Amino acid sequence: MVPPEEITVIGNTGDDMWWHGLYIAPDLDTVTYWLAGVADESRGWGIRGDTFTTQAAFGHLTDRSWFQLGDRDLATHLYRTGRLAAGAPLHRVTAELAERLGVRSRILPMSDARIETRLKTDAGDLHFQEYFVRERWRPAVREIYWTGLDEASPAPGIAEALAAARLVLIAPSNPSISIGPILRVPGMRSLLRAAREKTVAVSPLIGGRAVKGPTVELLRAEGARPDALGVAERYQDLASGFVLDTEDAALAPAIAALGYRIALRPTMLDDVDSARDVASTAVDLLREPAAA
Amino acid sequence: MVPPEEITVIGNTGDDMWWHGLYIAPDLDTVTYWLAGVADESRGWGIRGDTFTTQAAFGHLTDRSWFQLGDRDLATHLYRTGRLAAGAPLHRVTAELAERLGVRSRILPMSDARIETRLKTDAGDLHFQEYFVRERWRPAVREIYWTGLDEASPAPGIAEALAAARLVLIAPSNPSISIGPILRVPGMRSLLRAAREKTVAVSPLIGGRAVKGPTVELLRAEGARPDALGVAERYQDLASGFVLDTEDAALAPAIAALGYRIALRPTMLDDVDSARDVASTAVDLLREPAAA
Repeated sequence: MVPPEEITVIGNTGDDMWWHGLYIAPDLDTVTYWLAGVADESRGWGIRGDTFTTQAAFGHLTDRSWFQLGDRDLATHLYRTGRLAAGAPLHRVTAELAERLGVRSRILPMSDARIETRLKTDAGDLHFQEYFVRERWRPAVREIYWTGLDEASPAPGIAEALAAARLVLIAPSNPSISIGPILRVPGMRSLLRAAREKTVAVSPLIGGRAVKGPTVELLRAEGARPDALGVAERYQDLASGFVLDTEDAALAPAIAALGYRIALRPTMLDDVDSARDVASTAVDLLREPAAA
Repeated sequence: MVPPEEITVIGNTGDDMWWHGLYIAPDLDTVTYWLAGVADESRGWGIRGDTFTTQAAFGHLTDRSWFQLGDRDLATHLYRTGRLAAGAPLHRVTAELAERLGVRSRILPMSDARIETRLKTDAGDLHFQEYFVRERWRPAVREIYWTGLDEASPAPGIAEALAAARLVLIAPSNPSISIGPILRVPGMRSLLRAAREKTVAVSPLIGGRAVKGPTVELLRAEGARPDALGVAERYQDLASGFVLDTEDAALAPAIAALGYRIALRPTMLDDVDSARDVASTAVDLLREPAAA
């Protein structure tokens, strides 16, 4: 088992938003709360047992209250916003929050720069959170695009972490709007390409279906094959190993033909044991001889 | 009795501050909560029955948590900050909040401009809230000063409200840091001077002592007499009536000599009846013939 101190998580910040004056970083928060052991695991966001007193009062003041803020969660946003306002870069604030919440792994934002994931949909041009939370990913998506990429670079610490890593895991997250923004940070792909021999991707699709969220819909909107093979094609130059679900065994030969070492496993990560099994599988994959 | 719709309150915004990304306007909030009937009357700030869940979590993240934010109170700050960020001027946001909380009177900030009350003390150069809340007004004050006055003007609606009023009341608030900032907004004094014949000031000092807060200390720091006569001297060109406490009857001749009509009343406004009595007294004062 890998000690938590030896793990670095690189988080997507394309979902971040300014919300009534507060800077909200939902993906960094979710990672932090999970690693701190305080995440609301059934809901998938926020803090377990949190209350929503401010949220209820806020709902009486405005109908712009669709993004749910828990009372304890709000403390995180206040802290981060105050530190950013004082000039601290996001990676430092992220580390401070993780440390104060007792997280022993390292959590890095993909970049200190403000990058925003936006979607052109049949309900208009939307910030990611407007699409995902407010509209509950119902609008048809025509295009995904990003603002702020031009001046962005990977956050301090990412190059070193990737260079030093024994295993780089591309998580089974949405390739379009969770992994995609990370890969779009200028300089990130070349850091990952240099780490290709130790990088393993885990398919987010099981039998062509997402565990949750609009993975299939967004791969389609981007013109990609909406299955594990389509995902493998996207990561072809970045990863040398690929873990796909046993349900998708029929796609294995085509994925192997892309140059991957392949492992078939149940990839529904609904508990710690299955997540640990997939991570061990990835480590084992690196020990196999490289694919042709 | 004056119907609430006919009352306009002009509030001090020199105490406002940016707090971890949120714009906090404590005086406007206090007025709004009182008029909405939700104020915590015993504590003197915030909302009755409010909880402090965010505050407790925030205290675990930082020691910069000395300004107490209630959970329901936080909704007000989120709303105001979001609207200001969207470009709405403070007087409009103040009206929106009052309306949503069911306030029937009109509440106006002294100005839409950002004016900050600061104090040079033996504990350093402090924002008003640092002096008052964090340091509990213990430091000795050498000077009170303001930033942001140059570009400021009275908020829209103030000139009209003062012109149309039958009675203008200068509340028994701290003359240095509550009334003082309002009077310092460029243009405010001339609006008030034009309304002098219908303006009545109520002394904030009873027997030379403040009901609460550093009224005496700050009058001294400004080189003013720290009693009802010193207060009357400050408002001499703005008010024609003065209500002072029965305890201060000995000062009445000197205050009358400044050109005031005078009423002696119990001015400890610790319930609605005594406040109503002082307001009626002020109305009656205006009916008396002008002083010499």
